[in-house]
Amino acid sequence: MDCKKENLINPEIQMLQLPVSFHKKTRQNLVEAMKGVAQGRSIALFRGDTTKPIQDQDIEENFQQESNIFYLFGVNEPDCHAVLELDTGKSIIVCPRIPEAYKLWMTVKEAPYFKETYQVDEVKYDDEFENYLKEKNPQEIHVYFGVDPDSGLTLPQPEQSFLQNYNIVKDKMYHILNELRVFKHQEEVDQMKFIGDVSSEAHVRVMANTKPGIREYQMEALFKFHVQERTGSKEKSYDCICASGNEGPSILHYHDNLRVVADNSLILNDMGSKYNGYCSDITVTFPSNGKFNDKQKEIYNAVYDAYISVLRSIKEGVQWQDMHHLAEQRILEHLVKLGLVIQAPIEELVQKRVGAVFMPHGLGHLIGLRVHDVGGYAPGHPEKLKDLAGLRSLRTRRTLKAGMCISVEPGCYFNKVILDQAFNNPEVSKYLNRSKIEEYACVGGVRLEDDVLITKDGHFNLTNVPRTVEEVERACAGLPWKN
Amino acid sequence: MDCKKENLINPEIQMLQLPVSFHKKTRQNLVEAMKGVAQGRSIALFRGDTTKPIQDQDIEENFQQESNIFYLFGVNEPDCHAVLELDTGKSIIVCPRIPEAYKLWMTVKEAPYFKETYQVDEVKYDDEFENYLKEKNPQEIHVYFGVDPDSGLTLPQPEQSFLQNYNIVKDKMYHILNELRVFKHQEEVDQMKFIGDVSSEAHVRVMANTKPGIREYQMEALFKFHVQERTGSKEKSYDCICASGNEGPSILHYHDNLRVVADNSLILNDMGSKYNGYCSDITVTFPSNGKFNDKQKEIYNAVYDAYISVLRSIKEGVQWQDMHHLAEQRILEHLVKLGLVIQAPIEELVQKRVGAVFMPHGLGHLIGLRVHDVGGYAPGHPEKLKDLAGLRSLRTRRTLKAGMCISVEPGCYFNKVILDQAFNNPEVSKYLNRSKIEEYACVGGVRLEDDVLITKDGHFNLTNVPRTVEEVERACAGLPWKN
Repeated sequence: MDCKKENLINPEIQMLQLPVSFHKKTRQNLVEAMKGVAQGRSIALFRGDTTKPIQDQDIEENFQQESNIFYLFGVNEPDCHAVLELDTGKSIIVCPRIPEAYKLWMTVKEAPYFKETYQVDEVKYDDEFENYLKEKNPQEIHVYFGVDPDSGLTLPQPEQSFLQNYNIVKDKMYHILNELRVFKHQEEVDQMKFIGDVSSEAHVRVMANTKPGIREYQMEALFKFHVQERTGSKEKSYDCICASGNEGPSILHYHDNLRVVADNSLILNDMGSKYNGYCSDITVTFPSNGKFNDKQKEIYNAVYDAYISVLRSIKEGVQWQDMHHLAEQRILEHLVKLGLVIQAPIEELVQKRVGAVFMPHGLGHLIGLRVHDVGGYAPGHPEKLKDLAGLRSLRTRRTLKAGMCISVEPGCYFNKVILDQAFNNPEVSKYLNRSKIEEYACVGGVRLEDDVLITKDGHFNLTNVPRTVEEVERACAGLPWKN
Repeated sequence: MDCKKENLINPEIQMLQLPVSFHKKTRQNLVEAMKGVAQGRSIALFRGDTTKPIQDQDIEENFQQESNIFYLFGVNEPDCHAVLELDTGKSIIVCPRIPEAYKLWMTVKEAPYFKETYQVDEVKYDDEFENYLKEKNPQEIHVYFGVDPDSGLTLPQPEQSFLQNYNIVKDKMYHILNELRVFKHQEEVDQMKFIGDVSSEAHVRVMANTKPGIREYQMEALFKFHVQERTGSKEKSYDCICASGNEGPSILHYHDNLRVVADNSLILNDMGSKYNGYCSDITVTFPSNGKFNDKQKEIYNAVYDAYISVLRSIKEGVQWQDMHHLAEQRILEHLVKLGLVIQAPIEELVQKRVGAVFMPHGLGHLIGLRVHDVGGYAPGHPEKLKDLAGLRSLRTRRTLKAGMCISVEPGCYFNKVILDQAFNNPEVSKYLNRSKIEEYACVGGVRLEDDVLITKDGHFNLTNVPRTVEEVERACAGLPWKN
């Protein structure tokens, strides 16, 4: 193949640094928060992400730094540990000592690099760490250990054999550090707005370049290209979901992205990127041929109504579960009007969980250094529900407070498995107009997702994509889309 | 941002299926090869790659199937095992049983899907595997176990607890299966030519879109976009190396890709992709502003001479180490002519390892389902060298045979660490003209890498990128480049 100059690479890239002063502040906050919890001469120890070979090869998985060590130290190289002395506040990065000969093969970063870049108090090589501990002789070594409520997993722990000589404390720091991370500093909001903007632009670019007949993965490719070409980021927030047709958009985490995009089909693209550690998570839904048909528009507007209602209501003091109910209620009202759901008091429909037939997931999740961020469930806040459809999928039930970042992602789906269950459940099926629902099944699903910062009076939106039917159709046509 | 229609997504994608008959053949070959090795009622058991969470998150690493289970069964889904009965030849895929409720969240593949897609004799769910073993009651369970000579690692092993009731044989299958994989079937060559062509096109597209002032990672972004947009592949052959300036190209596995591309600098792009399990591995070197300067051209042509000399010489029966020496010799001849290396009998320069100062890596490696493929060192073939510079980095020293696929990648670098060592080693420094070498250090490095299939009479090239100075300059200008 010959290749013409296409000007696909533009020297005007986008960057936003996270200042070292931010990490200094997060460390001070942790020291403060651990006072009265940690005994005398104690330290907190963090294990960064490691170099992970792919199977038995000398090729590696993409490096993705562990979020706590990044939050506190900014360090973004593999195979590091870091120490925060809880008595003195001193910060120490422990970096690997890489043999001189490796300089032929890779960029070798040594202690002075870490000291200069991250401006911690000290940098030690990994082979000096044991001696440091002997000298410090900490009464307690606090590590970050707890079961993540989304995954059920715990973080890989520091595993140096000499740690067995010390008192490793696993049950103190988890919720304290999570709680600090829940409330975003301005520097973090800046990062999230930055990557939210880049991800939004990538979505709009995909919309303008999509047409029936392409493959779903081609949209993923263009989204990722935009983000890496603009910012250099190779970090992964989550796997791209590019879903089209009757079925794809109804599968919540569909990321096969293999189908041919049919004409007259909705496309649900749930894609976000990650930059300097911070995530975005954005979903748009748009018609494959650029124009909504009537049924698509009706369901889209039901979700849009839920979306805009929630955005108009959220602010400090609001219960997240109430927002979930609000979204559910708005969607149900539309479905009743369209005849898919039988007219009944809205409280009854909510109570019978009819809304969860169409929106079987939670309304959103905290977001930050992880796409599903920490702190959703914590001591002193409502517990995770086990039973109620839709609500049991909520990733938090907290009362919103200024400084939280959360995704708002109402959706309405025609998922075969869920609908079959509902039709076979007399408690629920009596509210459903089966033939009408089957008429609408071709819509597949709609989800609209923004990431927002909660403020005292409302929210600050970190996402900037077309949302009304008119805006979406203009973006698909490659026109200026903003009303 | 508003986005115009750019036509960046083209419905005319490229695909090439790997037929199930191929995997049937590889299984038959393994059964045949294990005859006389495996006792009576024995089986071979393979563990596919698993779903791997990123730290404690409910987000996963990219799935990358283990190459043996793919080679023998074609199965490309996570969390599978597979059995090949060595007595009967029967093939069985063991797939995970995924709860019905997951169908809301993901595309769930069940036994009939695996049976239909991979046409094995039987498919069992993982919870049926123990019973299968009880019924079969194999005398031996052969697993693939051996230390990879490149990484020093072994493959993760099947770890079902009930396997302890059986005789697990670890020391028989490794080299037998590797040896089968060394010799490519036509179906494999087709796959490698396919992904070689796509990767070549991606390189040319990057060359036409590159100019001084861009960042190295922007080239990586465009390369990956081209491959995923054209083929859908998300598989990783290896990390992209996009190196520019005086230093980057001299670091063999530089993949920081962060620098601004300077004017009048060489760019060394070592990028390959992976499709249907098969890898490509291609390096081009080109001038950032589209025109080589004199020094760049002189070093480029030294490497080109090595490259073309090797390609003209390789064929069945040739020793790979001799090809390494040939490349080294050609480069040395040029360096002598240019005055960087002192005139001396070429055998003396080779013997003193002066060539390794400039080409400190091996000439190439077997390639296939892994970028550094299996079988480079095996019983009955020359062992890995421990001492000799350059040669100790050879990933194989075998005699070439038709059917092998190997990369040919001579290079000439001005690496600071290696040069300093050489200048400080009187045995070597006496052959070096230091001031002349320092004059050429701004060239950084040149590497040219093709993947080829060895034939009886020569080779079949799986790579198709501009190679002569004229071709490269035309490609950089976005012109038809082929002579």
